[in-house]
Amino acid sequence: MRRESFETLRRDGDKLILLDQRKLPSTMEYVEARCTEDVYHAIKDMIVRGAPLIGSTAAFGVCFAAKESKSKDEFLSKCDFLSSARPTAVNLMWAIERMKRKALDSNFDQNELLKEAERIKDEDIEANIALSRYGATLLKENSVVLTHCNAGALATSGWGTALGVIKEAYLEKKISHVYADETRPRLQGARLTAFELVDFGIPSTLIPDSAAATLIRDGKIDAVIVGADRIALNGDTANKLGTFPLSVIAKTYRVPMYIAAPVSTIDFNTSDGKGIPIEERAKSEVIDPLDNGMLIAPDEIDVFNPSFDVTPHENITAIITEKGIIWPPFKENIKALKS
Amino acid sequence: MRRESFETLRRDGDKLILLDQRKLPSTMEYVEARCTEDVYHAIKDMIVRGAPLIGSTAAFGVCFAAKESKSKDEFLSKCDFLSSARPTAVNLMWAIERMKRKALDSNFDQNELLKEAERIKDEDIEANIALSRYGATLLKENSVVLTHCNAGALATSGWGTALGVIKEAYLEKKISHVYADETRPRLQGARLTAFELVDFGIPSTLIPDSAAATLIRDGKIDAVIVGADRIALNGDTANKLGTFPLSVIAKTYRVPMYIAAPVSTIDFNTSDGKGIPIEERAKSEVIDPLDNGMLIAPDEIDVFNPSFDVTPHENITAIITEKGIIWPPFKENIKALKS
Repeated sequence: MRRESFETLRRDGDKLILLDQRKLPSTMEYVEARCTEDVYHAIKDMIVRGAPLIGSTAAFGVCFAAKESKSKDEFLSKCDFLSSARPTAVNLMWAIERMKRKALDSNFDQNELLKEAERIKDEDIEANIALSRYGATLLKENSVVLTHCNAGALATSGWGTALGVIKEAYLEKKISHVYADETRPRLQGARLTAFELVDFGIPSTLIPDSAAATLIRDGKIDAVIVGADRIALNGDTANKLGTFPLSVIAKTYRVPMYIAAPVSTIDFNTSDGKGIPIEERAKSEVIDPLDNGMLIAPDEIDVFNPSFDVTPHENITAIITEKGIIWPPFKENIKALKS
Repeated sequence: MRRESFETLRRDGDKLILLDQRKLPSTMEYVEARCTEDVYHAIKDMIVRGAPLIGSTAAFGVCFAAKESKSKDEFLSKCDFLSSARPTAVNLMWAIERMKRKALDSNFDQNELLKEAERIKDEDIEANIALSRYGATLLKENSVVLTHCNAGALATSGWGTALGVIKEAYLEKKISHVYADETRPRLQGARLTAFELVDFGIPSTLIPDSAAATLIRDGKIDAVIVGADRIALNGDTANKLGTFPLSVIAKTYRVPMYIAAPVSTIDFNTSDGKGIPIEERAKSEVIDPLDNGMLIAPDEIDVFNPSFDVTPHENITAIITEKGIIWPPFKENIKALKS
């Protein structure tokens, strides 16, 4: 299996080395995180992003938290602080909970904790590779697929979920072309997915988000494949803003809509999409798109900037996980996955 | 009726003064057009944009063409050149045809031609005011409406179509809030509609295009109102990219979708949307959003950048014109309009 030319996160002694994704695609710059606070800001400020990568990064954050804390209470409060960095991606809470259990079980053994964080990272990559193979079975030869936002190597510890499926299917000669939504406002499709597609050598085209509908209606797209930030028990899925309208268009024009995500993205404590908290981010993300003060709108205007939307389960054809493909009825089949 | 604080086009002797809309909202700069070539570039490069304004500007362009030409053939070829500036907005062809008839009828009398161009401009404003009053009758008190792109005073000779309806309804206390799609890639919603809404003092919120779907599903929007670049005989409507997916969402969640446009936007020679040419614009509009070389995607990536999409008539609730509101069946009711 071919690999990318970059790494999203890597431990180097007592430092965590993170690829600063805010500077892509023009600059490949790595930053160091040396404490809980650094990890919190790396997640909150989107130096790292993507639900699985947020999880892995937070796992190393918990190692810092354990090292810095003089009491269990201090440790737990630092874990809560890390958990509050972003509200929607459940992998953040999932990884922190798993690390907390390991901390308490191992009596805060730093070595054990670092091993557990490395395990979370390695398992993420393994899960991506496994789900990519399952996902590729869903595609016919020479498929043209559409993806939204970035669910690639850059969104994970490595390889990717939706883009992992796409890369695997491309290597299996099942994909002839990929359309990537630019994904306003943060432009992860333009900045990150287009970068990965070019890096991997897959024939691909970048489009404004609004152009997807015409391509789908005109029969140009065989499947839509996206990642997820949180999947509720009934299959309702929170993912990057723009996924939900895409799902309505795909359903209307009978194009399959696949969600690709590791099981760690399923929130077994939330029954449906109404229970998923949706992060609202700063106005500046919308009106100052290059983050350089060149505003594209009058500063007086109000802005509504939700980072995610919820795709109802009835718009989803199947959910691709490392444990296999989950088909409807999602409620029953997701529950079965846990037991 | 309250007016805006700017003018989109104005004749000053033998010059045409045009507001350079590419520099809004940060700079209010006027440029001069002094010949056919200038007018062609003002339209092609989007110094002026918006179907009705393109029509009025082209009308003055024909005055230059008549003045510059030594023969009827030369004149007709200059008119063809003007017509080729942009392919989708039918008002361009409509205004040029009307001016050509006047040129031939008046034996190229420059005075007659200038009067006809002024008439086209004045009639456009009158049509906008008339259709705005019809449109306002469609809204209940305290409506929250969503619009896409810019169909305001800046898209016309003055006042506006979709935004004209919104302003009139606001003055009649029928609108409590407006949501404006930013409208990638050229951001006319952020740059122009937000500017007009702030200028007019209407409570409003700017959103990334993809956020419209969540607002519509959650019952936050009472009506969607947009302009048009070309309406086919059966009601299929070409408008700014993003209108079509909006119409699918509006239909799915049973929110009325209104098109506001003067009759000059109806193409009585095109039976349905398949016959409408859709302009594809440069890759740079997408990957260089501030037009300053700061790319948001790797330069190697391919880009698909259609300026418009076609909303099928079955997704349209009604078409608001200066001759009244056209309801389905559009085919019959649009034909009746001509006779």
